[in-house]
Amino acid sequence: MNAELHVNSSDDAVAPTPTAEAVHVIIPAGGAGTRLWPLSRKGRPKFLLDLTGAGASLLQSTAARLAPLAATITVVTGAAHVAAVARQLPDLPEENLLAEPAPRDSMAAIGLATALIAHRHGREAIVGSFAADHLVADSVAFQNAVRQAVALAGAGWLVTIGIEATGPSTAFGYIHAGEALDVPGAPDGRRVLDFTEKPDAATAARYLATGDYRWNAGMFVVRAGVLLDYLADNRPALAAGIEEIAAAWDTPARDAVMARIWPDLEAIAIDHAIAEPVAAAGGVATVPGNMGWDDVGGFDTLAALIPPRQTGTAAGAGVLGEADVEVVGADGALVASSTNRKVVLLGTPGVIVVDTPDALLVTTPDHAQQVKDVVERLGNAGEVALL
Amino acid sequence: MNAELHVNSSDDAVAPTPTAEAVHVIIPAGGAGTRLWPLSRKGRPKFLLDLTGAGASLLQSTAARLAPLAATITVVTGAAHVAAVARQLPDLPEENLLAEPAPRDSMAAIGLATALIAHRHGREAIVGSFAADHLVADSVAFQNAVRQAVALAGAGWLVTIGIEATGPSTAFGYIHAGEALDVPGAPDGRRVLDFTEKPDAATAARYLATGDYRWNAGMFVVRAGVLLDYLADNRPALAAGIEEIAAAWDTPARDAVMARIWPDLEAIAIDHAIAEPVAAAGGVATVPGNMGWDDVGGFDTLAALIPPRQTGTAAGAGVLGEADVEVVGADGALVASSTNRKVVLLGTPGVIVVDTPDALLVTTPDHAQQVKDVVERLGNAGEVALL
Repeated sequence: MNAELHVNSSDDAVAPTPTAEAVHVIIPAGGAGTRLWPLSRKGRPKFLLDLTGAGASLLQSTAARLAPLAATITVVTGAAHVAAVARQLPDLPEENLLAEPAPRDSMAAIGLATALIAHRHGREAIVGSFAADHLVADSVAFQNAVRQAVALAGAGWLVTIGIEATGPSTAFGYIHAGEALDVPGAPDGRRVLDFTEKPDAATAARYLATGDYRWNAGMFVVRAGVLLDYLADNRPALAAGIEEIAAAWDTPARDAVMARIWPDLEAIAIDHAIAEPVAAAGGVATVPGNMGWDDVGGFDTLAALIPPRQTGTAAGAGVLGEADVEVVGADGALVASSTNRKVVLLGTPGVIVVDTPDALLVTTPDHAQQVKDVVERLGNAGEVALL
Repeated sequence: MNAELHVNSSDDAVAPTPTAEAVHVIIPAGGAGTRLWPLSRKGRPKFLLDLTGAGASLLQSTAARLAPLAATITVVTGAAHVAAVARQLPDLPEENLLAEPAPRDSMAAIGLATALIAHRHGREAIVGSFAADHLVADSVAFQNAVRQAVALAGAGWLVTIGIEATGPSTAFGYIHAGEALDVPGAPDGRRVLDFTEKPDAATAARYLATGDYRWNAGMFVVRAGVLLDYLADNRPALAAGIEEIAAAWDTPARDAVMARIWPDLEAIAIDHAIAEPVAAAGGVATVPGNMGWDDVGGFDTLAALIPPRQTGTAAGAGVLGEADVEVVGADGALVASSTNRKVVLLGTPGVIVVDTPDALLVTTPDHAQQVKDVVERLGNAGEVALL
C-alpha cells in the first residue's frame, strides 16, 4: 500500500495506514500583521484580533477548527503574547503554550513543538502545523483535507495542504502538484514536484491554466519522527539545538537551556529548511483544500471578506467592530473601528477607514499593501507607541 | 452733493457728508453651521471656531477686522453662546453683548442692536452689520469698502457691500447694481436695482457677464435712524416691539420686557424686511468689495481655503488643528482634527477627514453640501449628543 512512496529518508517513513488518527496540532502564533495597522499592533498582533466580527480571534477560530481532529494542541508564540494567548485559549494546557524569547522563524518554532510532542507522545505521533492568523470559511472541507493529509503522513509523507486557487494571485507561493499517490484515505493525494516563490501575474495565470498549481498556505502534516529526521538531515545544528531544548523542557533546566541555546538557533522558514529540499527529493505530498481560505493579508482582502451591513439610509459598507456607522454613497467601503465614535461616510465608495483610539487610517484597497510601509516609517521615526 | 439721492423715506436720509465717521458695529453671531459638522456643533457653532488655523475664531477675526473702524462693537448671539463669546472677546463691554432668548432671525437681532445704539449714541449714529462667521482675507480692501459704505450711509443710503464675484456661484444671492452715485468718499457707490435669490448656473454666468452683479454677503451700513424708520415703515409691529425692548434695556425692567415681547417678534431676515422693499423704492446703494471673502459654507470651500501642509513624505493635504498627519498620495485632501490621534491618509486624494472625539466624518468636496442632511438625520434619530 506504500507502493507510491519513492523517497523517504527516515526509517519512520513507511508506517501503517492511519485510520482517522488524531493530530498533534501545532499553531505557530507569530507575525505582527503590519499591513493591518493600526488595527494590528506589536502588542495586539493579527492573530489575537477578531477580524470578521465572528466573536472569536483568528487564533481562537484556528484552535476551534482543529479541535475535532486534535489529540493535543500546542501554541508557539512570542514571550510578549503568552498571557494574551492563555486568556484567549483558557483550555490550552500550560505545558502546551511555548514562549519564544525571540523570534527564530518558523522552523525553530515548529521544530521545538514537534520535538516536544515526540518526547511526550512518541516519534510516530502525527503533527500538523497551521498558522494562527488565517481564515477558513468551510471547516468541514478543511477537516476533510486534514484527514487526507493525516492518511498520507501516516504513510510517511511530509504533507502540505494546497489551497485550490480562486484566481491568479501574485500574493502567494504556489505548490506544483505531480502524479497522484495511491494512499488509502487520501484519494486526492499527489506528489509535490516543487514549491514556487510568489509569481508575477502572467506566470500565475499560466500556473492556473495547468490545473496543477495550488496556493501554499504553509500547512504541514507529518509524523514527528519524519520531520525531525528531515531536519537532522538538512539542518543538523538546528536539529541538535532543538533536541537539546526539548530534552530539558519538562525539567527544571528548561529556562537555563532555552536561554543558552535558543538565541543562536538558525532563523529559517520551514519551507526553506525542509519542504523545498524534501520536495526536490520526492518526499512531499499534497492534498487539495477548497475551504474558503484567506490569509487576510491586508485591508484589501479584509474589505472583500466583510459583508456590507445595512446602516443608516443605505447598505454598502462593511463594518468591523461595534462602530456606530452611517453610510451614504459609500458602497464597498470598510469601517473598522475600535472606538465608540459615530463614523459617517458620505460619498466615499470603497474607502477603508480604520479608527482606533490613537491612530486613524484612511485608504483604499488599491493602496492597502502600502500600509506596511507607513508602519515602517513610523518605526524609523521612533513613534514606538503607535507600532 | 446729495443730487443723486432719489428716494429716501426718512427725514434722516439727507445728512451731512461724513468724514471717516466711525461705525457702530453690529455682529449677529448666529447659525449652527451644520454643513461643517462634526467640527461645528450646536454648542460650538461655526463662528466660535478657528477654521483656518489663524489662531483666532471667525468671530474674533471679524471683530479684529472691524476694530480700526469701530466706534463701538455690539454682538447679538443666542443665550447659549453668551459665555463663549464673552471669553473670546474679553474687551467687549458687557452691555454690548446681547443675548437672544430664542432665534428670531436677523431683522430682530440687528433691529434691537440698532435701536440700542440709537438710544445710546443718537439716531445719526452709523451702524454696520457684519456676519460673525465669514472669512475676509484682505482686511485693507474690506476696510476701504466699509469706508465708502460709511460715506454713502452718511448721505442717507442703506448701503450693502457687494462682493466682487470670482465665479458664477449658485450658492449666493446677487446684488444687481444700477447707476453710479456721486457721493463724496464713495467713488464706487452705485444704486441697487434689486436683490436676487440664489440663481442657477446659467443665470449666474449671465449675471457675471453683465459686470453689474455682485454677491450678497449680508453686510449692511446705514444710519441708525434711517434703518429704524425703514423698519417702522415696512414692519411696524416688529419695530414697535424692538423699540419697547430697547427703551427698557438699560433699566431694571430689561429681563421682564424681553421675556414678554421677544418670543412674539416676527422672525424675518433683514433682506426681506427692509433691503428688498427699500431697493425697490430706490433707497439702497452698494459698494464693491474685492477682499477675499468667503462664507465657509462647507468643507468643499474649507478644503480650497486651507493650503497644503508639508507632512510625512509628501505635501498635499491641508491640515486644520494640531493633528499629527501623515499623507501619502492624498493631494488636495483636508484633515480637520480636534483629537490628538495620528491620522494617516494613504492613496485618497481630495478626501475630507473630520476627526473629533465623538464623531468622524469622511467625505469629499463633491458631497460636502450633503453634510447638513446627515446632521438633520442625526437630529431626527434623536442623537442629540452629536448635534
